[in-house]
Amino acid sequence: MQLAVSTDMLVEGRHFLSTVDPERLGHKALAVNLSDLAACGAQPLAFTLALAMPHVDPAWLAGFSRGMFALADAHECELVGGDTTRGPLNICITVFGEVPQGQALLRSGARPGDDLYVSGAVGDARVALEVFRGTLALPPEAFEAARARMEMPTPRVALGQALRGIASAAIDISDGLAGDLRHMLRYSGVGAVVDAQAAIPLLACREHVPESQRLEFVIAGGDDYELLFTAPAAQRDAVQRAAQVAGTPVTRIGRIDSEPGMRVVDASGRLIDRAFGSFDHFG
Amino acid sequence: MQLAVSTDMLVEGRHFLSTVDPERLGHKALAVNLSDLAACGAQPLAFTLALAMPHVDPAWLAGFSRGMFALADAHECELVGGDTTRGPLNICITVFGEVPQGQALLRSGARPGDDLYVSGAVGDARVALEVFRGTLALPPEAFEAARARMEMPTPRVALGQALRGIASAAIDISDGLAGDLRHMLRYSGVGAVVDAQAAIPLLACREHVPESQRLEFVIAGGDDYELLFTAPAAQRDAVQRAAQVAGTPVTRIGRIDSEPGMRVVDASGRLIDRAFGSFDHFG
Repeated sequence: MQLAVSTDMLVEGRHFLSTVDPERLGHKALAVNLSDLAACGAQPLAFTLALAMPHVDPAWLAGFSRGMFALADAHECELVGGDTTRGPLNICITVFGEVPQGQALLRSGARPGDDLYVSGAVGDARVALEVFRGTLALPPEAFEAARARMEMPTPRVALGQALRGIASAAIDISDGLAGDLRHMLRYSGVGAVVDAQAAIPLLACREHVPESQRLEFVIAGGDDYELLFTAPAAQRDAVQRAAQVAGTPVTRIGRIDSEPGMRVVDASGRLIDRAFGSFDHFG
Repeated sequence: MQLAVSTDMLVEGRHFLSTVDPERLGHKALAVNLSDLAACGAQPLAFTLALAMPHVDPAWLAGFSRGMFALADAHECELVGGDTTRGPLNICITVFGEVPQGQALLRSGARPGDDLYVSGAVGDARVALEVFRGTLALPPEAFEAARARMEMPTPRVALGQALRGIASAAIDISDGLAGDLRHMLRYSGVGAVVDAQAAIPLLACREHVPESQRLEFVIAGGDDYELLFTAPAAQRDAVQRAAQVAGTPVTRIGRIDSEPGMRVVDASGRLIDRAFGSFDHFG
């Protein structure tokens, strides 16, 4: 087995709002790390937690721990060490996983002709953030659903493992589909065409978002923690079986080609000439 | 082999002064983690770095990296991942090492009758901090030496490994000798008598410190990153050979017994009835 390691640091006001429920924050702090393991197809084993807090708040800590350990237990991932100190709120988790020798999914394996897929839903976390920012309004139920996507992301651990030997490349979406796709393309030395019509339905709350903004939220949303991956066209059935085994829907949204960069096209194949940014967490 | 993992988080104003040379800070951030590996007798393998910075400062980063990688290279310890984000300055390193199955040094192995040892020098880092605080004055050369102890601690990696099979328990001193000794005693279910006369010479800059304060700095100094360990009396020669192999002096400062807690005695064996605190980093 090979050891897979990932570290993520979460800072108040940047990766989470100061008003977030500590239980959800505990979940999210571990989830974003498990998501990195998922992207390389690894099985979680253990994690360490370093925590800086401005003052000791037992109620906050109890909630944070509840959320973190509920997710850790669900993945049989054990807390094996840590550090606590006084300071501006900062949560740093390092997670360890294992993957059979040579079977890790990498960012660098995408090849021209491969299909491009995304798991789950994309863009809703960003919609929730925009509601908090006051630039959008959503009906209460739709807002709660989108907010749960932002505050309680689901790491696609089972899917990542099911895709071993099937996907040619994978990455998790934390900085937005465009931002992380560009990482993958650069590592693989390829380009990609994204089909807007296939991608827009990834936004679960799309009916509450103005049509003109839907594509933007999907492509440049951020904080989704879904898997973005590629697979040869010959693996389409295998990809769908993996999705079923993992209980996680996957959507084919485009194709890898040899022309560097990401291009988004409309239903008739015409290039949508718009700059899609990378999402820089609450930046 | 077993995997040993340690995480330490360093916060500005708490674990280091904002004025510290970034190269020294890079050294220290990794050193305090390597010190944890040393305390369990592990060989360093790799580390991750998560870094929050209020703004990107290329000169600071260059210095920090120089200090960190110089120490990493000296221990053939490779940076294998990380995360950077905007936020109040915070450095979180997680380090991985390996130790042969069942040979890790633990905090829990001290037994009544064991000797108690400390490596290197103790208390000088705290003296340097007190100079910065203005409560002490030192001649420039002595201050620079003490300051180097505070800003550039030496992780006792070789000594930790040399003590495998010899030491019965070990811990590294980060919160002061008294603080970390109490941890070890609690884990081991034993007590200890510390000989003040043997301990005071551990303070390298003692001639510049008022006699009345020397013991306090040694016992409750903090930020030393030396190894505190125990070994059966029958291992005295083996301990000294391990110290020679590692090129690190060790000093026998007391004995483990079965009466819970730490007691400090003077040259005539009389109890020194004073409360020695634990050092809570710059707190």
